Amino acid sequence: MSDLKQYIRNIPDFPKKGILFRDITTLLSNGRKFKEVVDKLAKRYAGKDIDAVVAVESRGFIFGSALAYKLGAAFVPVRKKGKLPFKTLSAAYTLEYGKDSLEVHEDAFKPGARILLIDDLLATGGTLGAGVELVKKLKGNIQEIVFIIELLDLKGREKLKDFPVYSLIKY
Amino acid sequence: MSDLKQYIRNIPDFPKKGILFRDITTLLSNGRKFKEVVDKLAKRYAGKDIDAVVAVESRGFIFGSALAYKLGAAFVPVRKKGKLPFKTLSAAYTLEYGKDSLEVHEDAFKPGARILLIDDLLATGGTLGAGVELVKKLKGNIQEIVFIIELLDLKGREKLKDFPVYSLIKY
Repeated sequence: MSDLKQYIRNIPDFPKKGILFRDITTLLSNGRKFKEVVDKLAKRYAGKDIDAVVAVESRGFIFGSALAYKLGAAFVPVRKKGKLPFKTLSAAYTLEYGKDSLEVHEDAFKPGARILLIDDLLATGGTLGAGVELVKKLKGNIQEIVFIIELLDLKGREKLKDFPVYSLIKY
Repeated sequence: MSDLKQYIRNIPDFPKKGILFRDITTLLSNGRKFKEVVDKLAKRYAGKDIDAVVAVESRGFIFGSALAYKLGAAFVPVRKKGKLPFKTLSAAYTLEYGKDSLEVHEDAFKPGARILLIDDLLATGGTLGAGVELVKKLKGNIQEIVFIIELLDLKGREKLKDFPVYSLIKY
């Protein structure tokens, strides 16, 4: 799906100088293309008995929930500290642009559940590393980690090497 | 869909004392029920030529993107200040729990586009009021404003009275 690149907008120096931001809103604003991307992912995981799609706030929610819907799977939000209202587990991470922690509800899914973990972008893998940690704490069975965009230079894949990683667009 | 209430978890004193938080994660963690909710909304808007579903960060993204996907419409994220990378328009709002502003990309959709505006919860209507303002600035044609949950006591509907408002679960 290399033609997908033409739907991604490149924005220099966002969120800070020296970073070339890959903007997915131009893909999302094309309903046909957005559908095509979700359908492609859904086809990949059809028949794999995915119990839940776990996605990281906020952009991960966009592809994650549409994919969960299409698969008939549960949708599990992983959110920034303090946002989830029930009892949570948390995992810290260091990001390209700072530091933070992520949380998931402790009853988000049952132990052994077959999980897809999704985010829009794989950069250093810091955020998703925390996501993986949360899923492991809940004894989820990660089937694959999915990204729309992967920034190859940042070698995030190495940080996630215990699991299969799949991305649609590589830079 | 009053039976939907049994899938919503009530959490007292979140995010602060005296507020009874309606937690949708228990609905989302039931894949069948999540699908049913999105399908119900999609059925309501099928054939209405919706061009874009505009949703407010972050929980609004969950239902908004699945609905956009099902309708084959564009998905337009409205985000907190400073999150969107391209040129934005912004609108301030006062929330139950504080103050903030929302932004949308200035090229998010074409003037005259047929828009559904969606969020998970209608409380005072402050957030969605800002969403409405942004859609109006872009000359979008709001077909309906959609909520999963409406808190009737807070009369948010009055703030949105220029447009049809639809909600699935009323408290």
